[in-house]
Amino acid sequence: MARILTISLNPALDLAVRLPQLALGHVNRTESTRLDAAGKGVNVARVLVALGHDVVVSGFLGAANDAPFVRAFADLGVTDSFLRVPGETRINAKVAEHDGRITDINGPGLQVGVEEVGQLLDILESRASDLNHRLDAVVIAGSLPPGVTANDLAMLIECLQRHGLPVWVDTSGPALQRAIETRPTAVKPNEQELAQWAGESLDSESARLRAARRLHAEGVDEALISAGGEGVLWVSRRGAWLATPPIMTVVSTVGAGDTLVAGMLHGVLEGLAPERALQLATALSAESVRHVGVGDPAAADFDDLQQQTHVRRLDDTAGERP
Amino acid sequence: MARILTISLNPALDLAVRLPQLALGHVNRTESTRLDAAGKGVNVARVLVALGHDVVVSGFLGAANDAPFVRAFADLGVTDSFLRVPGETRINAKVAEHDGRITDINGPGLQVGVEEVGQLLDILESRASDLNHRLDAVVIAGSLPPGVTANDLAMLIECLQRHGLPVWVDTSGPALQRAIETRPTAVKPNEQELAQWAGESLDSESARLRAARRLHAEGVDEALISAGGEGVLWVSRRGAWLATPPIMTVVSTVGAGDTLVAGMLHGVLEGLAPERALQLATALSAESVRHVGVGDPAAADFDDLQQQTHVRRLDDTAGERP
Repeated sequence: MARILTISLNPALDLAVRLPQLALGHVNRTESTRLDAAGKGVNVARVLVALGHDVVVSGFLGAANDAPFVRAFADLGVTDSFLRVPGETRINAKVAEHDGRITDINGPGLQVGVEEVGQLLDILESRASDLNHRLDAVVIAGSLPPGVTANDLAMLIECLQRHGLPVWVDTSGPALQRAIETRPTAVKPNEQELAQWAGESLDSESARLRAARRLHAEGVDEALISAGGEGVLWVSRRGAWLATPPIMTVVSTVGAGDTLVAGMLHGVLEGLAPERALQLATALSAESVRHVGVGDPAAADFDDLQQQTHVRRLDDTAGERP
Repeated sequence: MARILTISLNPALDLAVRLPQLALGHVNRTESTRLDAAGKGVNVARVLVALGHDVVVSGFLGAANDAPFVRAFADLGVTDSFLRVPGETRINAKVAEHDGRITDINGPGLQVGVEEVGQLLDILESRASDLNHRLDAVVIAGSLPPGVTANDLAMLIECLQRHGLPVWVDTSGPALQRAIETRPTAVKPNEQELAQWAGESLDSESARLRAARRLHAEGVDEALISAGGEGVLWVSRRGAWLATPPIMTVVSTVGAGDTLVAGMLHGVLEGLAPERALQLATALSAESVRHVGVGDPAAADFDDLQQQTHVRRLDDTAGERP
């Protein structure tokens, strides 16, 4: 069991709404509405807990509506180290109609002030230097809220790195670009995010591999590329691999990337053989898409899903830095 | 200053969403989202507080998401006497697009059990019999949640009546029909609700007056009928009046009826002359429609609005019981 800190700088409350049909301009009655603590860092925490780890969660939370988070953290048994910021955590509504149409209505992020970035840094410093509860790794997942810059993110990563902590980062756009410059232990762009970083379209396996190798060459120990049903590409100092998951009936891909990150971190921290770690993480991510929510390692057929996940080594020198 | 208990059996959290245009089946980004404690009884409480009264709020609240209510009650300075019920208070989303189109997405009410109806009755009994904090009146406003029947509502009203309390009721449908049988002190149907109760369409002032007189004759002391911009009809033992508000630019009629109820109760409890009470309540209700939220008696032009509200006595015998 490892002790892992997950950081959500821009979490959200997910409002899941189900109704037969949404009529614009009218009063609609829903079959159900549910408000749940969400955000990529929270999803990663859920999976890590399910895999048996001890998790501390941190980031920014709106003080005015943190109750669903407080409840979720208590249910999960994770340590709440979120900084409360005046205002409300954004609400993302997902309206599902009977015909399968999904409409997302995503709120703006919580406005974070400069002094609050400093306060979060203090919280993370004190967590990172707590010798009685030594952390094994940190995951920073999700977008940046208004008021937090890519440079702020880099500063947070570098602070954690100074304490000798491996930092895994899952974000996109300018935040990802800037994070890569800090040489984090791992990043997990999807195909589009990697293409944006690489500045070229990546429409073949070899182009993706080339870009992942570039990532690794630029100082990212574990370059993990998720390409949906086509699989997961992993380039590390130990080599390069491609994992192909079994074909799943997709219900929701929300949480699949977060599950992949958590599964890979678990495999690496537990010292699994690379093929085994990638197989487990890819299968767990595949498990997540057949239902709403993150992957469940306790699923009855999880062993089967792992066996149906094929991992192929790409070539012996793939992982070497040029 | 009076001490008033307002009861919301089926409150809601209002999620106000603004965005340029809602594209179904896509990811939409909003300009703002706000989650506020709502429900008709809570609105009535807001207005009564603004009018200087001491207010106790009660009803059913979902234990899992009561934080916005707790905060609103603290801000308002009202006494929280809500029973917490396992589960979540419903969320009603109101999506406002730039072109003015409003789409309501209303959640199902909180499921209330038989034993919880009994527990609320105990709370209300103890509030009604607290001689150190004597109540002057009770307002029950809004719909009934799943699990609470019209007979349960009648039982609550009769319990409060046994303690000698005037009970004002603002509800609709079968709950209104059943409530009227308990001879509450006041009801405030709108035109459609009155027509439903009367079993006939009320397309003239005289038809409305006839129906309001029937209400009064059946034992409702204060029969208050709201007909939007056309005004407010009031039949009581003191006579019958029609108030016509000034013409307003309507932004939102949500809260106008609740403001009317609170304003009339204020006028009656303060012993204002009937014309004066009706004028104040109608003007305050008119004030509410030009913005989101309930009427504000501290509005700079509230005196002008009252002067522009014309109250006409309908006839001398209007209020006598046949």
